[in-house]
Amino acid sequence: MPRMHTLTHFRLCPHSRSVRLLLAELDIGFALIEERPWEYRPELMAMNPAGELPVLALEGGPVLCGSYAISEYVAEDVKTNLRERFAPPIFPGSRDDRAEVRRLVDWFHGKLNREVTREILEERVYRAYRMNGAAAPDVAILRAVRENLRYHMSYIAYLAHQRQWLAGDEMSFADLAAAAHLSCLDYLGEVPWDEYEPARIWYARIKSRPAFRPLLADRISGVAAPGHYADLDF
Amino acid sequence: MPRMHTLTHFRLCPHSRSVRLLLAELDIGFALIEERPWEYRPELMAMNPAGELPVLALEGGPVLCGSYAISEYVAEDVKTNLRERFAPPIFPGSRDDRAEVRRLVDWFHGKLNREVTREILEERVYRAYRMNGAAAPDVAILRAVRENLRYHMSYIAYLAHQRQWLAGDEMSFADLAAAAHLSCLDYLGEVPWDEYEPARIWYARIKSRPAFRPLLADRISGVAAPGHYADLDF
Repeated sequence: MPRMHTLTHFRLCPHSRSVRLLLAELDIGFALIEERPWEYRPELMAMNPAGELPVLALEGGPVLCGSYAISEYVAEDVKTNLRERFAPPIFPGSRDDRAEVRRLVDWFHGKLNREVTREILEERVYRAYRMNGAAAPDVAILRAVRENLRYHMSYIAYLAHQRQWLAGDEMSFADLAAAAHLSCLDYLGEVPWDEYEPARIWYARIKSRPAFRPLLADRISGVAAPGHYADLDF
Repeated sequence: MPRMHTLTHFRLCPHSRSVRLLLAELDIGFALIEERPWEYRPELMAMNPAGELPVLALEGGPVLCGSYAISEYVAEDVKTNLRERFAPPIFPGSRDDRAEVRRLVDWFHGKLNREVTREILEERVYRAYRMNGAAAPDVAILRAVRENLRYHMSYIAYLAHQRQWLAGDEMSFADLAAAAHLSCLDYLGEVPWDEYEPARIWYARIKSRPAFRPLLADRISGVAAPGHYADLDF
């Protein structure tokens, strides 16, 4: 039994990053254990038969698999003892407001992941690791996926222009999910910030939060982050 | 404003089917409107910019996009007036139990969909519709995806053997999600039931529930369901 909560993650996994942000925003302490998800190690499969990240093993509690189960579990936590001090809800507002948060979480962790983040990570990171750096990305795939990213950037800019935060008046898990994906893509220098000013302003705001600092300190071998990655005034 | 709740769906969309089962189990009445998701009609995009199904427009209420937002919204409904009579919770049990339900919902609507259902629907239904019946499925893809299905059937059989229902002692949205996917695959004659007896027994049990009847009456043009599809003693 672990002596504290442990989060099994990969540094550039967007689902893992959204949960790191979530736990930090809620002031829930945790230790990190890194897995390379493409290795499907037996130790990971034993914790999560799906072989997916992140996995949150709560001290003296259950093992929670995936950002969906984890986020809803900690969102139910207002009345219990995981939290060390008051933190605002991450599915805020009315029931209708929460449906909007969840629609957008689904958008970022489902659609944006499928159409952009997972493809770029596979082409530029995972495959190179699996093949010890010998794999060149498929240029045609990258071109198509970068075009998809422009569509998603437009939508994020539209939301950021209309609203205080992406799902409404308050910051929510939708912001954390979107920021998690964009932070992975930004690490890889893939985000055309200049063309989507409201998205850039929103991202600069969320990036300057204390919860974001550990992500900005992450580096992975073989891929250098661009100079603006950790710059709060990028 | 619609005079009753309306669910925009496609007959063989597994996410839509899980919500049809959910609403029927909760005794929430609704009218169906069919969309062909591969057409991305402006009317669908206006309701759900993601262009995905299902979409639930509540009478006098919000428009809910996607099985995640819909299922969590109606799960919060115990204290409100959507429900006409008592129905058991679909995220039953303790907070830990609900995390297990959500892990498995994620498995079926995420992993099983990605590795099997979406691929088979694309190869055998969607592409043929888009090309007016002229498209032959890619045999290599079908072979790989059928192999994936065996792995998922093993896991469902394992869960069904260990537990009363897939996530625990009570029926939950995890059962409805799994049954929704298997019902689509079964319509296409893709499920090797004979080799996974505990899964077959579990499916026969859920298939015999009144909520399942409308799904068993569905037919789509160009693809005949096998004889056992609507047979409760298959």
